[in-house]
Amino acid sequence: MDAIDVIRAKRDGHALSNEQIDWVIDAYTRGAIAEEQMSSLAMAILLNGMTRAEIGRWTAAMIASGERMDFSSLSRPTTDKHSTGGVGDKITLPLAPLVAACGAAVPQLSGRGLGHTGGTLDKLESIPGWRANITNAEMMDVLDSAGAVICAAGSGLAPADRKLYALRDVTGTVESIPLIASSIMSKKIAEGTGALVLDVKVGSGAFMKTVEQARELAETMVAIGTDHGVKTVALLTAMDRPLGRAVGNAVEVAESVDVLAGGGPEDVVELTVRLAREMLEAGGITGKDPADALRDGSAMDVWRRMISAQGGDPDAALPVAPETHTITAPSSGVLTRLDAFAVGVAAWRLGAGRARKEDAVSAGAGIICHAKPGDKVTEGQPLLTLHADNASLFERALDSLEGGYDIGPGTPDLLPLIIDRLS
Amino acid sequence: MDAIDVIRAKRDGHALSNEQIDWVIDAYTRGAIAEEQMSSLAMAILLNGMTRAEIGRWTAAMIASGERMDFSSLSRPTTDKHSTGGVGDKITLPLAPLVAACGAAVPQLSGRGLGHTGGTLDKLESIPGWRANITNAEMMDVLDSAGAVICAAGSGLAPADRKLYALRDVTGTVESIPLIASSIMSKKIAEGTGALVLDVKVGSGAFMKTVEQARELAETMVAIGTDHGVKTVALLTAMDRPLGRAVGNAVEVAESVDVLAGGGPEDVVELTVRLAREMLEAGGITGKDPADALRDGSAMDVWRRMISAQGGDPDAALPVAPETHTITAPSSGVLTRLDAFAVGVAAWRLGAGRARKEDAVSAGAGIICHAKPGDKVTEGQPLLTLHADNASLFERALDSLEGGYDIGPGTPDLLPLIIDRLS
Repeated sequence: MDAIDVIRAKRDGHALSNEQIDWVIDAYTRGAIAEEQMSSLAMAILLNGMTRAEIGRWTAAMIASGERMDFSSLSRPTTDKHSTGGVGDKITLPLAPLVAACGAAVPQLSGRGLGHTGGTLDKLESIPGWRANITNAEMMDVLDSAGAVICAAGSGLAPADRKLYALRDVTGTVESIPLIASSIMSKKIAEGTGALVLDVKVGSGAFMKTVEQARELAETMVAIGTDHGVKTVALLTAMDRPLGRAVGNAVEVAESVDVLAGGGPEDVVELTVRLAREMLEAGGITGKDPADALRDGSAMDVWRRMISAQGGDPDAALPVAPETHTITAPSSGVLTRLDAFAVGVAAWRLGAGRARKEDAVSAGAGIICHAKPGDKVTEGQPLLTLHADNASLFERALDSLEGGYDIGPGTPDLLPLIIDRLS
Repeated sequence: MDAIDVIRAKRDGHALSNEQIDWVIDAYTRGAIAEEQMSSLAMAILLNGMTRAEIGRWTAAMIASGERMDFSSLSRPTTDKHSTGGVGDKITLPLAPLVAACGAAVPQLSGRGLGHTGGTLDKLESIPGWRANITNAEMMDVLDSAGAVICAAGSGLAPADRKLYALRDVTGTVESIPLIASSIMSKKIAEGTGALVLDVKVGSGAFMKTVEQARELAETMVAIGTDHGVKTVALLTAMDRPLGRAVGNAVEVAESVDVLAGGGPEDVVELTVRLAREMLEAGGITGKDPADALRDGSAMDVWRRMISAQGGDPDAALPVAPETHTITAPSSGVLTRLDAFAVGVAAWRLGAGRARKEDAVSAGAGIICHAKPGDKVTEGQPLLTLHADNASLFERALDSLEGGYDIGPGTPDLLPLIIDRLS
């Protein structure tokens, strides 16, 4: 087989055969297809699309490029969640221990943030001592002892996806639903979970800006999961405004701990409990209500065990950024809009996120939203507090917040927190 | 500026700005844009197209990436020809000396063959001693003394195109009219010719399979040339059947010498004389009829000087391939079809062409067509003679000729030799 023939086939609008897909993924993983060939193929896929059958085969080939984990030795069913990423999306932090407290095993392989969306591992690394990189054996130990584990995916899992993702990142070929869906699902299926709940974010702060795009991505991923024997459910959820009140790293850990202690912002609690119910149902676990596990402290117990097992001190003080700047309400009225993208970019510019994979993030940087869309505000009251390690970072962060919120007499035009459910 | 932003702009269907184009070509030439970024951009250009303004600027940026030759010191006007490539297309060989014999200077920078189409330099290299690679100073000397020069383009001319062409060749991004037109025209304009006649081939043996495609390419190139102050004319000519009777290297040199001696196949003579008239007219030279220069031997005199000046012996015997295989007519009738692509692929498989740039070609290999479409043939008469260095090569060459010709009672359905003229 020849790389150019495969590229031409996709370029000219044909569906790739199973043999072509298997060959391309294997040859690319081995280095027999050059990066410049894979990137022109990725662009042809982005512009000409792939059929469901092609996407399924592409995913299977990426899974086959590496190892598959096996949790069949665990006494509890595994169930996992994946979010397509958003602003203030710390849900994994309270969710994984909560679902474990209800009887499931949660093997959560997570990523780091890039651009305006945060990463679960970056957030957890603000906890003194906590380590994201553990061996597969350590992962099994934590999962066995705590019931949940959140850690970095090992390099043996879907290496084709790892290589392709890095290539897409620099060649303008990220925004392709077939490539996004196969990338997410190849890692989740290789990870070996029995059930999977997808949280597909919609809105300015999300990758998918419209409900239609998000629905297409969700349907594609549910089909792939189902075809691979993973019980898969997707929720479409709002990302037109930030989730919760905290956006950053340590500030989101603190908010997550509030949720585990039975408090926390209403939207974070609602989405956490709903996702927990979906994960338990998909995993076949009945008889326990996640809302109870937040109230009775059992979810917090799992959190403490889980953090300690990876070297973290759950009682340690979290880092605080030394510089703050508060934006006050310029007038009285209702906060009708607080744009997720504007807040996400501002937090990124404050140091909470990274522009390139190799950059470090600031543990303490971020934004606290004192008001949420729909709240009444009075002129001069604090609206947003910006936290940074260096006061020189405020200017560009404030630029991105310019026009990012509205105060008026009207009512906010918001997406419902949970827009739809697909299974 | 950022490569990913430029890729995304073209991917999303926008026209690139002048600044984006200038930056991309310069950064790519310097190595500041990676090959995998340029290939995804090339695929986006192939699938989403470019406006005339973008193509013009892209061409200008490629010209600006290297040196420009200057023939203003010559006492004679310069005029050149470019063919998009075909089977049996040896026209440059008799044409360059013919036009020089009529008073123009012909600086013909040529290329090598790839795939089923032959290359002018490969053909001339079958002449013992002849060298394709000469310095710019030697080129000026040959042009001054002989009036015409055919040689390889120096590496200083449009280096961006050189790099991009090699990339397109391996990434499935060759077949883009904007990229083809800008590639051809950047080299021809940097070469410094004052007038240019484009021979855009149409048919199975050509790059452009339909008259519509060829017309679009021709119009695009004429517009670029005109914008750059080069008097540019294009002919669309037939490549549904081979040109002339010889297809290969030494066999095509021999046929070219026949034409220069006043003989040769009718179609080769007709196209050579027509292109010569166009080149002279575009160059502003009047008063001399190229047909006379073939009859009176003056074109042959230029040929001999031109070949000698680059180390070739115009009187040396040309290489002959030791093995031959003749296909005879299976029935009597009229040869209604002789497919250019089938004959081109067969000649390539016999060793006349190369599959990869680094391959060598056989000087003696090729095909002689004893009959041309429209000729009456009788059962058992020789139709095609295959020449090769090794008899084992016949089998695959014969495979490609299978179904490549028809003998019947009808009349051939052929493209006119000269289909159209654009200026």
